[in-house]
Amino acid sequence: MMEPVGLVLVGFGNVGQAFAQLLLEKQAELAEKYGMRCHVNGIMTGRHGAAINPDGIDLEEALRIVREGGQLKQLDASDFSGDTLDFIQQSPGDVMVETTPVNPRSGQPALEHMRAALSKGMHAITANKGPVVYGFQELTALASGKGRKFLFESAVMDGAPIFSLFRQPLAGARLLGFSGILNSCTNLLLERMEAGETLEQAIAYGASIGITETDPSNDVDGWDASIKVAALSTVLMGHPLTPLEVDRTGIRGITLEMIAEAKEAGQRWKLVCSLERKGEAFVARVRPETVGPDSPLFSVGGTSSFVVFNLDVLPGLGVLESDPSPKTTAFGLLADLIYTQGKA
Amino acid sequence: MMEPVGLVLVGFGNVGQAFAQLLLEKQAELAEKYGMRCHVNGIMTGRHGAAINPDGIDLEEALRIVREGGQLKQLDASDFSGDTLDFIQQSPGDVMVETTPVNPRSGQPALEHMRAALSKGMHAITANKGPVVYGFQELTALASGKGRKFLFESAVMDGAPIFSLFRQPLAGARLLGFSGILNSCTNLLLERMEAGETLEQAIAYGASIGITETDPSNDVDGWDASIKVAALSTVLMGHPLTPLEVDRTGIRGITLEMIAEAKEAGQRWKLVCSLERKGEAFVARVRPETVGPDSPLFSVGGTSSFVVFNLDVLPGLGVLESDPSPKTTAFGLLADLIYTQGKA
Repeated sequence: MMEPVGLVLVGFGNVGQAFAQLLLEKQAELAEKYGMRCHVNGIMTGRHGAAINPDGIDLEEALRIVREGGQLKQLDASDFSGDTLDFIQQSPGDVMVETTPVNPRSGQPALEHMRAALSKGMHAITANKGPVVYGFQELTALASGKGRKFLFESAVMDGAPIFSLFRQPLAGARLLGFSGILNSCTNLLLERMEAGETLEQAIAYGASIGITETDPSNDVDGWDASIKVAALSTVLMGHPLTPLEVDRTGIRGITLEMIAEAKEAGQRWKLVCSLERKGEAFVARVRPETVGPDSPLFSVGGTSSFVVFNLDVLPGLGVLESDPSPKTTAFGLLADLIYTQGKA
Repeated sequence: MMEPVGLVLVGFGNVGQAFAQLLLEKQAELAEKYGMRCHVNGIMTGRHGAAINPDGIDLEEALRIVREGGQLKQLDASDFSGDTLDFIQQSPGDVMVETTPVNPRSGQPALEHMRAALSKGMHAITANKGPVVYGFQELTALASGKGRKFLFESAVMDGAPIFSLFRQPLAGARLLGFSGILNSCTNLLLERMEAGETLEQAIAYGASIGITETDPSNDVDGWDASIKVAALSTVLMGHPLTPLEVDRTGIRGITLEMIAEAKEAGQRWKLVCSLERKGEAFVARVRPETVGPDSPLFSVGGTSSFVVFNLDVLPGLGVLESDPSPKTTAFGLLADLIYTQGKA
């Protein structure tokens, strides 16, 4: 009988719930293909309380309660009270899966959650880029010292394999630079503007379908894109970079006239992220550019994203992610989970 | 001191030589990053003879001799004479790297080379799709029984990570189908026709730069594309398929008029490969289709290729390979080599 892997979920919003749902869907497949059985031993939510149960929480029940607006307290078997750090301390488990809202300027509180879980000897997986940009080296060293892993596949391009691609598949290759569309929100906004909406109308639409955040400046001003550029540089190129070091221009300056003019010329405006190694220097940039149909960026529509890597052995290796959903992000977390167990 | 990995190279044409060159270039990097040191203990060529040396052949010297049209005999330390199967038998080594010309209808002689190497207890790596389509299950079982690996990353889309992507990164995902441009030769031919050349002129150009084979029907009639569809189906979907089971239409029927008409409408002709699971049935197809600028296939030019995978957790994961060269294919072989040693 296989020993269950104990999971601790910190954050139980759209992505956390999608991950729980995916775990349920993939239960039989994981057991069959990888001999993996998972128990969720703790769930910490923002607005629905927390539950700890060393024997495993009934996930379907937890999802139902949260969807109906109830409190997880009723599933708690350990009389838990406290904050998230207390929760991480007290939850028995092998792997923490972290999906809380994050402050893009500091990486908190996700960064603190990672530290707590790794210090305790758990593998730590997050969907947040904050801990990557503000703590990659520290957390990787901490994990390594504990014989555990710090993983974050979902932090860039949701669940599309980016970081894992550079582990085994591209082991013998050296990354020289990359460019692409990494912020799907502005990509959608620009597409709405092509259909005639103003930026404000497009943002309102984005908010209505849950794509833009309360503070749209994170996307619109290129912060999210810059954080992703910084994350890729830090992890894949071994060149630590903060978002502030990215030459950043958002899409506020793009007018409907500019959009129309581009369209007339058979072009589209895209918020292009890039990093180029020039000798010893690294030039990191986020800025709107027009692209034509001969560019692989042209057809990247809606909330899709795309990156092309320039490697010493592969001049252009592109990865496209079309039409992601919370399930896609949840898959990135699952892929990380499988990797912590050395199952593939 | 690290034990050297003994390599045996069967085939030493463009790709084999590019692999040898890459080994030389990456020597320091492999030692530093993976503690790997490689010796080439045997080289078998089509027209320059063979050499076996258990202490390692001087690769730079071997490359020089072959480029100058000489014979490798002068580097042979074991008085070798015999055919390729004798060579595989007599060469001491841990890993065979196979790049000989292959018959697309039978997978030979590559298939026989794989059998010989694996039976002898070597890992077997090939750039040929033949052994994949005609021997995947047999060779995988043979490798597994010997505790060795049968690998073929370069068989589809050169060195772009396709098969390795489905090992660890996509371990938890299920593939439902795919579509894309897998034959770069016809992609180039169609582009030349867009510039006004007839198919015959385009083929002559392709031959002049070493892209089209002596018998262009392998590409033009969609055989190469069909073999690739069959390989992806067999390996990634666990659904063995032969090229004959692919509904195949090549590009001979595409006239300059059709090309011009498509261009007029802002479209391009592409040879599209696809596989779709429909209930219990698998619909595999290779056929010319027109695509517009909203398709990710539109911008795939020259000898580039592209595939988009439809996965249960990722509705559209695309992989683009731009402007490959023999070095790109060589990288696929190197990636496989690193994997055989469990180094990444």
